[in-house]
Amino acid sequence: METLVERVLERNKRAIAKAISLVENHPDECEQFIKKIFPYTGKALVVGTTGPPGSGKSTLLNNLAIEFRKRGKTVGIIAVDPTSPFSGGALLGDRIRMDELSADPDVFIRSMGSRGSLGGLSRATMDAIRVLDAAGFDLILVETVGAGQSEVEIVRTAHTTIVIGIPGTGDAVQAIKAGILEIADIYVVNKSDRPGADEIARELRLLLTLDPHAKDEGRWRVPVISTTNLPPVSGIIELADTILQHQVFLNDPKNAALAFEQEMIRRKNEIHEIIKVEIFENMLTSLIGRQEWEKILKDVISKKLDPYSAAKSIMDPLFR
Amino acid sequence: METLVERVLERNKRAIAKAISLVENHPDECEQFIKKIFPYTGKALVVGTTGPPGSGKSTLLNNLAIEFRKRGKTVGIIAVDPTSPFSGGALLGDRIRMDELSADPDVFIRSMGSRGSLGGLSRATMDAIRVLDAAGFDLILVETVGAGQSEVEIVRTAHTTIVIGIPGTGDAVQAIKAGILEIADIYVVNKSDRPGADEIARELRLLLTLDPHAKDEGRWRVPVISTTNLPPVSGIIELADTILQHQVFLNDPKNAALAFEQEMIRRKNEIHEIIKVEIFENMLTSLIGRQEWEKILKDVISKKLDPYSAAKSIMDPLFR
Repeated sequence: METLVERVLERNKRAIAKAISLVENHPDECEQFIKKIFPYTGKALVVGTTGPPGSGKSTLLNNLAIEFRKRGKTVGIIAVDPTSPFSGGALLGDRIRMDELSADPDVFIRSMGSRGSLGGLSRATMDAIRVLDAAGFDLILVETVGAGQSEVEIVRTAHTTIVIGIPGTGDAVQAIKAGILEIADIYVVNKSDRPGADEIARELRLLLTLDPHAKDEGRWRVPVISTTNLPPVSGIIELADTILQHQVFLNDPKNAALAFEQEMIRRKNEIHEIIKVEIFENMLTSLIGRQEWEKILKDVISKKLDPYSAAKSIMDPLFR
Repeated sequence: METLVERVLERNKRAIAKAISLVENHPDECEQFIKKIFPYTGKALVVGTTGPPGSGKSTLLNNLAIEFRKRGKTVGIIAVDPTSPFSGGALLGDRIRMDELSADPDVFIRSMGSRGSLGGLSRATMDAIRVLDAAGFDLILVETVGAGQSEVEIVRTAHTTIVIGIPGTGDAVQAIKAGILEIADIYVVNKSDRPGADEIARELRLLLTLDPHAKDEGRWRVPVISTTNLPPVSGIIELADTILQHQVFLNDPKNAALAFEQEMIRRKNEIHEIIKVEIFENMLTSLIGRQEWEKILKDVISKKLDPYSAAKSIMDPLFR
């Protein structure tokens, strides 16, 4: 394991891949491993991106990574979206472009399975981010499909959150209702070569000004950036600039209190995740045996016992 | 509260609405309330539906509810999708159609907030289903956006799960990758008036036969049903028939063992949800004070303490 740690710190791609498999599949070793690399983390800018399937997130991230490489930045990409081309489900053209990117020694791309991550996807993703962080990637781009609670949790671990929408019916309204507008640091209207793009960008800008805190002094103003994926791509340079501006904003001593508060929330969420896993995968099995479980479940099915009382009886030993 | 229970059992719409608000916002009273109505539950067929935004789920459910009403069935609808027209974010035409439906005394429609449910959305949704069940609705249709882990959990509480897709790039592949094909009891290709519909239906049927257990005797064969939302709607009668066939299948004494096993899993998931809420909203706050939390988080941020050790130190009192 010592060797693995050393080689991850040297940014060896095979070691990084191995380390991420370890955090995905071996919770016990993961814990030891994370403890060892933990002191080397905290340098990367973690950029969470979220948007519905079909919004062209992966291609956008691909183009963004190319732009950051031009600027000499090293880039890690983690795709948590099972429908992402990064995860393999791609049109051939996309795949080829992404393969080119991943051949770059200063780029590392990994998709996380939505099933099969022992100990929860959120926890595994956070630890995978940490592996890339320790490996010294300047930027870590995390792609999620962003419609579910767990995906929103993953995005919340990012320093900078990009919400991606496309022109179409009610996108702006849906963003508000889904509560994703309020998590955005940057809003991107992708596929802005399509009809209705200017309109949705205008709507979003308007909606963002309606936030009562929108004009508070020293507050980050959420920009709306229009991008296209089809060559000639547009908006990518502006998006890369804006991400780096947000980094500057977060590192500004004037915003230290805000940045610290956000970091407190991120770490609290992470500890919550670890506790959740610990309780459900370890503690619960030690509290209650298989036969006892069966008896309780049968009593609930036959309505002798309601589920709340069942939960209480299982947790009883904890309170003794 | 006794009065509220009685009036819910009489299927009084105002009482039902009040009861669902109670399970959403008042965890303590909820527990008491659920204990009281619990003996009256277990009669409804709970149908979970999931599909991406834009797949026309809400309109399909609307049409399905109308079909079931024609057959004399009472119908409850719970929309867990924040982008659902049932939740208010609708085109005017949709809204009007849904308002007509909800004016029917034997139909109850409710959307669940994706935020603001104290004690977790999954738990609140399960209890809302229970309220409608106690109120004597024959069918309870639950709509989720289905891309996230919590949404899949919600769908897993259903007796019958419908996965909805639309013609378009790689829908079949995406369904497999997202692991939603394996939760489907019925697969619907909606908007089947669009090009590519026959192709995706064919692909899905092929994929479903690839399941090694697909030909096991006595097993439910997952059908693929093509539907349209635009008048004249098609496929709805077949879909309604199929849902009721699945109910017959589940109630067949030959399948009693399977049905019981599934019910065991559902109840186990539900008890897990309750335990999760209990631990994070009650137990954790009693284990660790605000100041202690702050100290731990600061130590993690300054890298004096790694998150795994932090989680352990918080849970330590549980093991003494």
